[in-house]
Amino acid sequence: MVEEREAAPHILVVFGALGDLALHKLIPSIYRLHQSQSLGPNSVLLGIDTDETLDDDAYRDRVLSASPDEGGGFSVWCRACIHYQPLAKSGQDAGRLEHRVVTLEKEHSLPGNRVYYLAVPLSAVDSIVTSLAAQGLHESPGWTRLVLEKPFGYDLESARELNGLLHRHFLEEQVFRIDHYLGKETVQNVLALRFANTLFEHLWNREHVESVELTAAETIGVGRRAQYYERSGALRDMIQNHLTQVMTLIGMEAPESLDERSLRHSRLEFLQQVRPVTLGGVVFGQYDAGGIDGGGVAAYVEEEGVKPESRTPTYAAVRLEVDNDRWAGVPFFLRAGKRLRCRHTHIAIRFHSVETSTFRPYERSCGLQPNLLFITLQPDEGFDLRFQVKEPGAGYVLSTQRFRFRYGDVFGPLADAYETLLRDVVLGDRAHFVCDTEIEAAWNIYQPLLKETIVPHRYVAGSWGPPEAELLGAQWVDPEGFHP
Amino acid sequence: MVEEREAAPHILVVFGALGDLALHKLIPSIYRLHQSQSLGPNSVLLGIDTDETLDDDAYRDRVLSASPDEGGGFSVWCRACIHYQPLAKSGQDAGRLEHRVVTLEKEHSLPGNRVYYLAVPLSAVDSIVTSLAAQGLHESPGWTRLVLEKPFGYDLESARELNGLLHRHFLEEQVFRIDHYLGKETVQNVLALRFANTLFEHLWNREHVESVELTAAETIGVGRRAQYYERSGALRDMIQNHLTQVMTLIGMEAPESLDERSLRHSRLEFLQQVRPVTLGGVVFGQYDAGGIDGGGVAAYVEEEGVKPESRTPTYAAVRLEVDNDRWAGVPFFLRAGKRLRCRHTHIAIRFHSVETSTFRPYERSCGLQPNLLFITLQPDEGFDLRFQVKEPGAGYVLSTQRFRFRYGDVFGPLADAYETLLRDVVLGDRAHFVCDTEIEAAWNIYQPLLKETIVPHRYVAGSWGPPEAELLGAQWVDPEGFHP
Repeated sequence: MVEEREAAPHILVVFGALGDLALHKLIPSIYRLHQSQSLGPNSVLLGIDTDETLDDDAYRDRVLSASPDEGGGFSVWCRACIHYQPLAKSGQDAGRLEHRVVTLEKEHSLPGNRVYYLAVPLSAVDSIVTSLAAQGLHESPGWTRLVLEKPFGYDLESARELNGLLHRHFLEEQVFRIDHYLGKETVQNVLALRFANTLFEHLWNREHVESVELTAAETIGVGRRAQYYERSGALRDMIQNHLTQVMTLIGMEAPESLDERSLRHSRLEFLQQVRPVTLGGVVFGQYDAGGIDGGGVAAYVEEEGVKPESRTPTYAAVRLEVDNDRWAGVPFFLRAGKRLRCRHTHIAIRFHSVETSTFRPYERSCGLQPNLLFITLQPDEGFDLRFQVKEPGAGYVLSTQRFRFRYGDVFGPLADAYETLLRDVVLGDRAHFVCDTEIEAAWNIYQPLLKETIVPHRYVAGSWGPPEAELLGAQWVDPEGFHP
Repeated sequence: MVEEREAAPHILVVFGALGDLALHKLIPSIYRLHQSQSLGPNSVLLGIDTDETLDDDAYRDRVLSASPDEGGGFSVWCRACIHYQPLAKSGQDAGRLEHRVVTLEKEHSLPGNRVYYLAVPLSAVDSIVTSLAAQGLHESPGWTRLVLEKPFGYDLESARELNGLLHRHFLEEQVFRIDHYLGKETVQNVLALRFANTLFEHLWNREHVESVELTAAETIGVGRRAQYYERSGALRDMIQNHLTQVMTLIGMEAPESLDERSLRHSRLEFLQQVRPVTLGGVVFGQYDAGGIDGGGVAAYVEEEGVKPESRTPTYAAVRLEVDNDRWAGVPFFLRAGKRLRCRHTHIAIRFHSVETSTFRPYERSCGLQPNLLFITLQPDEGFDLRFQVKEPGAGYVLSTQRFRFRYGDVFGPLADAYETLLRDVVLGDRAHFVCDTEIEAAWNIYQPLLKETIVPHRYVAGSWGPPEAELLGAQWVDPEGFHP
């Protein structure tokens, strides 16, 4: 949607209010939306967690100490607009939450619009959703929205179960599944690049595209998240969700318009045309000890919370094929990993080499290279377009050059993806959220891998992953080499 | 050709050695070729002009005082390699030139390779060429090359006469007709941009291109060149030659390879497919008094050497159509003028607006603009590619941005076009010179205008030309607005 709409006053109930996500991401993002007057007037936030010892003021102190650099206005806003309600984990506090919500709505003259943000592990979702429904909180005098974080299940079956649970108490239209990659400006801009530029629109198919690469490389290890990560691994943590969603924006057909319904339709159609991956189309890896930025780091199996015999992949690379007219024969390579050489998330669209004969005889001596569109999601968001020019001087020696565009150079710092998506939640715009059928279609692509035990190859921490990944046939772009 | 070849030792005989072109352009360019060892060893330059009072040393002094900033090496080179020979204007010095050339070749141990560079008005060409032939100088123990400057005739008939004269004494393969626009790196790079980049190659046709613009805007007036310019005017001075040659590189089909023969074949074929311009497809202008860069300037008819009733156009704009599959229906707009708003020579390829529905409903609110490739020939050589991105924030508001490439940023200062073309002359590479049939085909396009008296519209010096030019239907790019 183009028009800027105003959000309606509401209460935002955050479950998992003492977690890192809530304290470090959500609340600062909500504050920035408040600053830009993107929240409705009088809107308040109610944090929910199990710590019975905290009251409003104690929770506000926790919030303030988690974000020491937000400035004086943050403190004023916290004191006025943030509240806290302890609730037992079991969710057996029948009526206690409902009472608090209604009381706050009265105090702040709110019309009954409610957002429930579940910043909790998957295992806690069932009891919260059920408890909300039991207290009648799934219905309200205004609108009600339920926000969920990944993981949306662990495989196709559990994803279906989760969708079933949600649909028992909420309409699909009320559910906002957050994939924060869809909130990134560089990702949303894929639609503008593709469909608002003749330049790219006509090249975006198998006739002109050789391959597509999506890479999410981290330098960090598993950190304190072993409990989650041991069950997840690189495929579930990054590829099935984030990279598959981004791939969908790269691959989908032109939506009829930019409204929610058209976007979902195009995305879902594409996801359903991606051929389920085969065992020959995947390489898993697990990091050994090595070095990152000059410092030594331990192997994955030595990390806290990881069993020595763990086969959890900390690296995954897949080769996907798409069964439609546009992409038949064009491989999509997706890879993600921890403890890789540098932190970089990017999309690389590699075009075919030129076909005309003009420069062919000089291909070697000219240094002819195919055009490449290289979109950087992080760090330093922007994109580069690799092209050839004639080198000054005698003959037709070619030089590979890059057009370079960086959002920061033009627009200043970009909003955090959470800020963007929370704005959409309070506005009720689901265009950049993932619906039930999309979730299931995305799981379906990876389902063949989830039933197998795949032994990961070893790779040295600080490398680009296991050498075996070369067998997939990708020409991975080295982001360090690409940016001069 | 890709391979760097070495030039053979030769004598370069420059007719018009006391003219501005020789003193200010040719000799400094030849010196730079000497510095980069692109001339063969022992090569010498023999200046020819009518001043009988000068000898070698006096001419060297003139050369040195014309280029005071070239440094000490220039002086050493001048003293060693530059000579002077006075000759009567009539060319009736039978044997005198031949004797001098042979003597110099002996002195410098040269094998008899000869370049004759005619830096003289068209009226002097006949007697020089005839005299060269009479002395047997059109043949030599090595190779012989004849270099000519524009104008190559004043219309189709005189161009044919000139070609006939040349062919009586020289083979076409020996003739190098200089259009210095073809020596510009930005112009030569058009081939690399088009045929070494999938990105552009596939968009380069009527399906994707809306229109093509070529503009050569000068701020200077006629200066001291009224005698030449009164007979020429903007159409002959800039459009029939320079801009038509550049247009040909933009429009021609892919040459089979980059060799001379293939390039000429493609260029000629294109020129022959350009439909001769009609009276409805042209607007002439002549500058009135006005202001340039804050200073007042006189009208053309007040310039020295211009008659008050002169109807010479100092501005011309034409709309050309090309009768082939690639370009049917795509207008090529060429314009050139003196005393315009700023000095700028550029090519603008305007692509069609996007056709997919996605952004169409938002066309107005989004600020959708078509892609544009904007190649700057001068000043600050390079090119820009205009595209759309999503503006950060809610909705899909589009922002028009530019990729920017400047040769200077990557390669440092570019060689002068004369240096480039003189290097090609001594190497014997005619790929960037204009052959007899191309000259005639280019005249043929403009022939319908040359028989008519077209009264020029008036325009204020310092403007963008006569308002009547709008009627051609071009959307001229404002280079001042384009470069932020």
